[in-house]
Amino acid sequence: MTAEQRRQLDAILRQSAIPSDSDVAEQRRLLHALASAQPLASDVVVTTTELGGVPTVEITVEGIASRHVVLYFHGGVYVLGDAFSAAGLASEVGRRAGAKVFSVDYRLAPEHPFPAAVDDALSAYEALLRRGTAPSDVVFAGESAGGGLSVATLVNARDQGLPLPAAAYAMSPYADLTLAGATIETKREVDATLSRELLQPRVTDYTAGEDPALGLISPVFAVLSGLPPLLIQVGSHEVLLDDAVRLARQAATADVDVTLDITAGVPHVFQTFRPLLDEADTALNRAGQFLSAHLTDADLLTG
Amino acid sequence: MTAEQRRQLDAILRQSAIPSDSDVAEQRRLLHALASAQPLASDVVVTTTELGGVPTVEITVEGIASRHVVLYFHGGVYVLGDAFSAAGLASEVGRRAGAKVFSVDYRLAPEHPFPAAVDDALSAYEALLRRGTAPSDVVFAGESAGGGLSVATLVNARDQGLPLPAAAYAMSPYADLTLAGATIETKREVDATLSRELLQPRVTDYTAGEDPALGLISPVFAVLSGLPPLLIQVGSHEVLLDDAVRLARQAATADVDVTLDITAGVPHVFQTFRPLLDEADTALNRAGQFLSAHLTDADLLTG
Repeated sequence: MTAEQRRQLDAILRQSAIPSDSDVAEQRRLLHALASAQPLASDVVVTTTELGGVPTVEITVEGIASRHVVLYFHGGVYVLGDAFSAAGLASEVGRRAGAKVFSVDYRLAPEHPFPAAVDDALSAYEALLRRGTAPSDVVFAGESAGGGLSVATLVNARDQGLPLPAAAYAMSPYADLTLAGATIETKREVDATLSRELLQPRVTDYTAGEDPALGLISPVFAVLSGLPPLLIQVGSHEVLLDDAVRLARQAATADVDVTLDITAGVPHVFQTFRPLLDEADTALNRAGQFLSAHLTDADLLTG
Repeated sequence: MTAEQRRQLDAILRQSAIPSDSDVAEQRRLLHALASAQPLASDVVVTTTELGGVPTVEITVEGIASRHVVLYFHGGVYVLGDAFSAAGLASEVGRRAGAKVFSVDYRLAPEHPFPAAVDDALSAYEALLRRGTAPSDVVFAGESAGGGLSVATLVNARDQGLPLPAAAYAMSPYADLTLAGATIETKREVDATLSRELLQPRVTDYTAGEDPALGLISPVFAVLSGLPPLLIQVGSHEVLLDDAVRLARQAATADVDVTLDITAGVPHVFQTFRPLLDEADTALNRAGQFLSAHLTDADLLTG
């Protein structure tokens, strides 16, 4: 990152920071305005659809005709965000994976606390399989809460006896809602996006009396055995850095293939900051290689 | 890994296991016999040479004519092993990085305790630079103790004000000689190579009264700021898994680019088990891509 890129990035982060004392309605409005300011690429086609009764946004990049599917989970601490607002980033994942994307509009807290998001994510995946999509043609991806939800949904699908997708890709996963990662404190000065103060009330909204250490809420505490290969990307300027590190460690403990890809000096879900940040494109390209390699490997195995 | 590959691998690991109650001479003999059983590829040329008065083995793969250099540090808990025995693995790193390799015969404990290895590693790097090799044309690589030594030498070179190489690649780094990683206990049943019992006497040989938590002995405790991008590979069947995870975390804490690449179900320095293990080739190929990308990026920056 050049000094000028750093200056521009810091200005964007300052302008888009969500005040920790704002309420849910205000936080939703701010995040939505931010997402609307990022136009989709001109070759991206977005359609409203549904999977298993769960609203989804189907995202296709012109020229990509493949049976491969990215099932995408947006971020927003389980309270904010929506499937359409994430379409820009999701489309760039699909483009690089050579796959169509379904971005899932899972229900949000506080109106619909845990396990609504987890249930909707699983319903969408089940519906995809029921439609005849082979699990080996599917990868999960998501950012922030959607990264955590990707892994929670793998655990959930495994426990339900469903066949699992070929791989999963989590950007800056929000994977410990007990907020116990040391970087919640040690990185607070360099993270302009998230903080304990901002997260804590939203944890309460989502958990609604359930133990935040449950594996389906905080996959850093889940038994991750049997999961497909994971790619976890995170910036070093994040209070959630330790969520990523501990998720990778937990996966390795359970003998799961995992790549933890840490980019220095970049913020939460830095992949959204393309084209400003070269690091964003580089990381997305690595993710595309990872996802398409596992989709292709699965093709070879399944014929 | 197929069941047959697992059976063959387990047999090799059982046959080559070093008894924890053997002495240094016996351990050296066993490790040397093991290395001698692995022939070099027919296109690899090995020459004895020196860098800054430190004996080295120069390793070239026929057809690779490049100014890029891998400075390679062998494993053996700072007590066993030698530059030539590591030539097989080192040559496969050089082949994939498109570079010549110098494998460094740093002095070993107990005859030469810390800081002899660290001093020799730095002397070899300094000599390479004095010969006119650009730091941007150099990467460090190493396995086990050599992985730890690679990172320690980056820290040492930084503290001495030397320009740093383009990147470093650590396989199953031995990076915490206090043996405080939780996986020293939790992975003992699945690691047929290393154990606390085997390591502890060799720690004493190397530290010889120095604090094993010194950053140049145990880089998981060093301040890693200013280091070039790191690739750390480790198997999930290793007592040293937590050395790799904590080294990655420590690097990220200091805003260093780091990729932690964990392969499920494979042993300590699994890259040596090619061609038996497909995982070995796959991991070496990823390392080659990482190293050559950073060597090429450095070329572009420096013209």
